[in-house]
Amino acid sequence: MINPYLKEEREYPLTTVKRLAMQLQAEGHDIIDLTIGDPQDETFDGARLAIQDFMTDNCVSQYPLATGSLDYLQAVADWVEKHYQLKLEPIKHIFSSNGSKEAIFLFALTFDWSIANKEIWFSSISYPVYEASARTVNAPIRKLPVDHSSGFFPDLDAIPEQQWEKCRLFWLNSPHNPTSMTIDQSYYQHLLSLADKYGFIVCSDECYNELYQDNRPVCSLDFSQSDRWVAFRSLSKRSHMTGFRIGAILSRNEEIMKYFRLCRSPVGVGMPTYNQLAGIAAWKDETHVDRNRLEYRQKRKLISSALTKKGFEIHGGQNGFYFWLSHPDYPTTTELCNLFLQQGICVTPGTAFGSDGEGYVRLVYCISMDLCLKLNDRLNQLLP
Amino acid sequence: MINPYLKEEREYPLTTVKRLAMQLQAEGHDIIDLTIGDPQDETFDGARLAIQDFMTDNCVSQYPLATGSLDYLQAVADWVEKHYQLKLEPIKHIFSSNGSKEAIFLFALTFDWSIANKEIWFSSISYPVYEASARTVNAPIRKLPVDHSSGFFPDLDAIPEQQWEKCRLFWLNSPHNPTSMTIDQSYYQHLLSLADKYGFIVCSDECYNELYQDNRPVCSLDFSQSDRWVAFRSLSKRSHMTGFRIGAILSRNEEIMKYFRLCRSPVGVGMPTYNQLAGIAAWKDETHVDRNRLEYRQKRKLISSALTKKGFEIHGGQNGFYFWLSHPDYPTTTELCNLFLQQGICVTPGTAFGSDGEGYVRLVYCISMDLCLKLNDRLNQLLP
Repeated sequence: MINPYLKEEREYPLTTVKRLAMQLQAEGHDIIDLTIGDPQDETFDGARLAIQDFMTDNCVSQYPLATGSLDYLQAVADWVEKHYQLKLEPIKHIFSSNGSKEAIFLFALTFDWSIANKEIWFSSISYPVYEASARTVNAPIRKLPVDHSSGFFPDLDAIPEQQWEKCRLFWLNSPHNPTSMTIDQSYYQHLLSLADKYGFIVCSDECYNELYQDNRPVCSLDFSQSDRWVAFRSLSKRSHMTGFRIGAILSRNEEIMKYFRLCRSPVGVGMPTYNQLAGIAAWKDETHVDRNRLEYRQKRKLISSALTKKGFEIHGGQNGFYFWLSHPDYPTTTELCNLFLQQGICVTPGTAFGSDGEGYVRLVYCISMDLCLKLNDRLNQLLP
Repeated sequence: MINPYLKEEREYPLTTVKRLAMQLQAEGHDIIDLTIGDPQDETFDGARLAIQDFMTDNCVSQYPLATGSLDYLQAVADWVEKHYQLKLEPIKHIFSSNGSKEAIFLFALTFDWSIANKEIWFSSISYPVYEASARTVNAPIRKLPVDHSSGFFPDLDAIPEQQWEKCRLFWLNSPHNPTSMTIDQSYYQHLLSLADKYGFIVCSDECYNELYQDNRPVCSLDFSQSDRWVAFRSLSKRSHMTGFRIGAILSRNEEIMKYFRLCRSPVGVGMPTYNQLAGIAAWKDETHVDRNRLEYRQKRKLISSALTKKGFEIHGGQNGFYFWLSHPDYPTTTELCNLFLQQGICVTPGTAFGSDGEGYVRLVYCISMDLCLKLNDRLNQLLP
């Protein structure tokens, strides 16, 4: 009777981790919770003001359009053109989404999975929603092995031709959650050539694209000629707006967008009217994104230095706001989690992102500078 | 490649209708748009104030919990206990939803539809989301015939035993969109007995329950002993908050709720933090609901009188805010729509709710009193 995937009773891994951290806090422990990529610094204030103004000026509330208002979509289109020199059209190429998570989850519903030979592909270490979505809609999946030696992205050349024939959706996530690793231009170009050849879609989860150390990492919007990508963007990370749920879906593939639009229309994922106004304000402003980026650089520097001093190996890249860690003296994820917990630090077990995450933990640093300093002190107490 | 249901390219029927009305307005026609159940009177002001206060007091935004905050769920539990004398527990029996539409759509994902002999049932004249959801997830469906003689609800006794064996989910919607008809206590009791006997779930869409003419219609929450119902409630209609997207899912069936919770967790339908505060304010207040109810009575009286004078037959009940109409001289839906359009009035074709809606139109009266008076004038010009 119940969906077989749900019958396995797998709690969403990040819910489990967050709940444990909250439980320890409730028991009175002085916990530094570094489990969830949920920025603790200020939200972009223009977004808050936009909502306040709406509530002052409007006493009537009406249904939002399922794909977003033209004003919201135009603000996203303007942002794309300004930063990526790509012209996209509202509705045809851009929809609103309530954050990127719901859009990522629902995308699989656009396709026919009754033909058993087509699959959804994702990395063996990845954001848990790709698998949850595929398994919930009963789509065949393939986990592409990734590890330190592959740079935590799948080795495209290791996949034989007859396997590529089975790929329908390929989830790409760069900068990568949980490792912060980033692909380069030639990797993405190669992937898009394969997508052309074998007729699959690259589903590109790009919510960390604007949080980088030195140069903006490559993303779908840099490939202005391709119609093989669908990009999922969000204000959650760049603008510290996780509680607002504001995102956008973008693609030059008008056929896929047409069917995804038809799919989404009855789902009721139209964005609350005033959230669209907050979104317009945030997409139009870069000052706060520059500031956030700068602050993450400072935090990264401080904490990476403390971690390195204690013998941790930082495996991931320098973008996003995650450290992906191992330690030669603590070879298992459990030992690593316990080590941090001795100093009241909760981190996410690497295995929350797949069993290939064994031996690693993820530590988030989207925390306030005060908490970074406190964390720095505790890290210095670790492993005396 | 594409989901076969989406391949049929059926635009969501109410989107089509709304688009036509907006197009006529854009062309300069003075249109009274009565197509969508989207209240035009004031939103409950306590909800707006709650959001304003949040934006003033909080400069940090954090992820909402997938099932809603304890405070939000407790406010819903308190409202249930106060009005229906039923004790429900947060999380175990109540979750938040972003309006009821997304919850209604997603519920089918909780179940296994690969066993071909189980079906989703709904009336042949109904809110289009039940069918869109079932068809999108590729679940077998059965449309139960309804018409004037059956009171626009399925005749439960006309369904043979071997058919009942196939029912897994039974969508009930009372007061009924589009007809405003309402079931009585014995109908629902009978349905729940059948649900016990055959092991199906009554999915009860109750967003109009608090908008009634004389006495509150029966609903799931009146059946405190049954665990065969899952109720979908919303602030959209009762509190005029369609643009906010705030609702709740309620059931005493802890097993179903457990799996639906597991299903929803990775979907990203957690309600924005400040919307939960707006929701708390609205569930706690009844004054505005009493006022809305009273105003709909006045509007109903005014418009039904104008319609009756012109020979329209009002088939539906007196709850909700819809008229379900036919006219002996205009036997088809197309003729009816054109008749209204001659006076610049856009109504929803009955066929938007299923082919059995042929011969009818739906006319909404959740409009301002000023517009009601204007509508009254135009109706008086109709059929001179």
